[in-house]
Amino acid sequence: MPLINRQLRLKARPEGLVRREDFDLIEQPVPELKDGEVLVCVLYLSMDPTNRVWMRDIPQYLPPVAIGEVMRALGLGRVVQSRSAQYQVGELVQGVTGWQDYLVLHESAKGYVCLPADPGIPLPTLLGACGMSGVTAYYGLTDIAPVQPGETLVVSAAAGSVGSIAGQIGKIMGARVVGIAGGADKCRYLTDELGFDAAVDYKAADFKQQLKAATPDGVHVNFENVGGEVMRAVLSRMVIGGRVALCGLISGYNSSERPSDDFGVIVMKRLSMRGFLVLDYTKTREAVQALGGWIREGKLKAEETVADGLENAPVVLNRLFDGSHRGKLVLRVGADVQGSK
Amino acid sequence: MPLINRQLRLKARPEGLVRREDFDLIEQPVPELKDGEVLVCVLYLSMDPTNRVWMRDIPQYLPPVAIGEVMRALGLGRVVQSRSAQYQVGELVQGVTGWQDYLVLHESAKGYVCLPADPGIPLPTLLGACGMSGVTAYYGLTDIAPVQPGETLVVSAAAGSVGSIAGQIGKIMGARVVGIAGGADKCRYLTDELGFDAAVDYKAADFKQQLKAATPDGVHVNFENVGGEVMRAVLSRMVIGGRVALCGLISGYNSSERPSDDFGVIVMKRLSMRGFLVLDYTKTREAVQALGGWIREGKLKAEETVADGLENAPVVLNRLFDGSHRGKLVLRVGADVQGSK
Repeated sequence: MPLINRQLRLKARPEGLVRREDFDLIEQPVPELKDGEVLVCVLYLSMDPTNRVWMRDIPQYLPPVAIGEVMRALGLGRVVQSRSAQYQVGELVQGVTGWQDYLVLHESAKGYVCLPADPGIPLPTLLGACGMSGVTAYYGLTDIAPVQPGETLVVSAAAGSVGSIAGQIGKIMGARVVGIAGGADKCRYLTDELGFDAAVDYKAADFKQQLKAATPDGVHVNFENVGGEVMRAVLSRMVIGGRVALCGLISGYNSSERPSDDFGVIVMKRLSMRGFLVLDYTKTREAVQALGGWIREGKLKAEETVADGLENAPVVLNRLFDGSHRGKLVLRVGADVQGSK
Repeated sequence: MPLINRQLRLKARPEGLVRREDFDLIEQPVPELKDGEVLVCVLYLSMDPTNRVWMRDIPQYLPPVAIGEVMRALGLGRVVQSRSAQYQVGELVQGVTGWQDYLVLHESAKGYVCLPADPGIPLPTLLGACGMSGVTAYYGLTDIAPVQPGETLVVSAAAGSVGSIAGQIGKIMGARVVGIAGGADKCRYLTDELGFDAAVDYKAADFKQQLKAATPDGVHVNFENVGGEVMRAVLSRMVIGGRVALCGLISGYNSSERPSDDFGVIVMKRLSMRGFLVLDYTKTREAVQALGGWIREGKLKAEETVADGLENAPVVLNRLFDGSHRGKLVLRVGADVQGSK
């Protein structure tokens, strides 16, 4: 009797929450393996916010799942048949399995990790703390926005798969860690079971006050998973020069309209964005010397638009916004009796 | 006959464009100098977009100008009286002069630069290319988001005081430089007079197509002065891993409502924000080993919420958004006949 593979294929792009009817459940026999192929029985599927993004027909870091395609998802399975020397029956395979019972994998496929039959770790943990979720938290706090001992780290969606690990890594690194989660139970979980220094309930009416009270020295690093109003509140608490590891923006993933913030592109394109104010550069001699040198060498053209009259300052300022000037807009105020004008 | 000082004092916070009526013009005699004071005759005022921000009663990097206070502004003046050994009559003084004819400065005041009577540079240029505007462009492209030879740099408000210098510095550094400005005249100015490689007119109906055509290899560095729709268009053209020097967001400065984008706080607090995707980390062994070690040492708690049944995948996925799980959400699909579950 042939094995039957069930597949969930995307039928329609969900609006808001995902519905069972947005997918077709197809049953078909597992095909005979060819040389170099292995058959993987899927044991666990990783449920990730990014799955929801993949269902949307918007620009993103991977192509959206096409209508009629098996839903893309990370998973963990066991090799049950093998015609490849690289995979032995009984070994575990981690990677994109999709929403189905069985995966036919060619040995040349990229992005799959083969693990021993008994990895010594509970299998669900291989998809969580020791899988993509944990690895994401790890690199976010070691590479993207390293947190220093004594600094305050705020993690949103802190009771979730990535956030719960990120907060604990923050503690291991010596930071003061504040988690944001929904509801008193989760907040207690963060402080009492995971060892966070404080937890803030984003569903509480006094969320912003709670956040302020929990971050008396401001926020040095934000490990952000949520976006929207939660992120805005955290950003308003950040210290000058703070760092944000932008991991996810789950608050907007179910929306079919414009996202609730502008930060999505920073994740999708892995951008680095730095705000700056020239007043932080207190010693500008190097810059002025370079600029003056380039002007003298003819490499840099300096142009000014000069308006006149102190009393006109308010109206002249508006020219910055109507585009009626070029280069630097300056206002001549006094007659210079001693120097050249 | 005593000298008369005219001052423009903020009377009401402007809505939209600034009006002359938003300021009182006060005339009063210049006071007698005390020991340590100098009298500076203001020659030129720097007209800067940030002046408009200072008029608004919103959180920002300096206190807003108070009602009744002389409008804050950078300027350049000449010492006309001195009771300080540090300033000689005839020397130039650069710093916050405010919107007034005369400034009484105490020698201990911070943030003022004293220049020789004849600095060898036209005075307006001291406020432009060799002043705060040029210095801003310089550090933006050398410190905040350095641009490499051969990379594509896009500068918005490129015909303005900072943008025109930033684009030229980009050329000096060997980048391909694309400027965004309003109108065909300014675009010609950028390419024909300042040596930009291309210019794009944000007022044109086909702005986005122009931008795409001008950046065939994408955008590596964005020196951003504008924000809003212009910035969104540039971000959509950025390469993976691109860098943004966020200098200003002039498109929102006249608004009394919520800004047209979320990026303002990044400038005001000089934040660094980095988006990331774990799939960019192709060798995750270090992370998995560290995570596994912490779990074994009891420093890291791994928790999973396990749901059942492939057919339930669409509905289980929604639990990520309703907060009904803790830690990692996984879906158990197949019975594991060979391993532990």
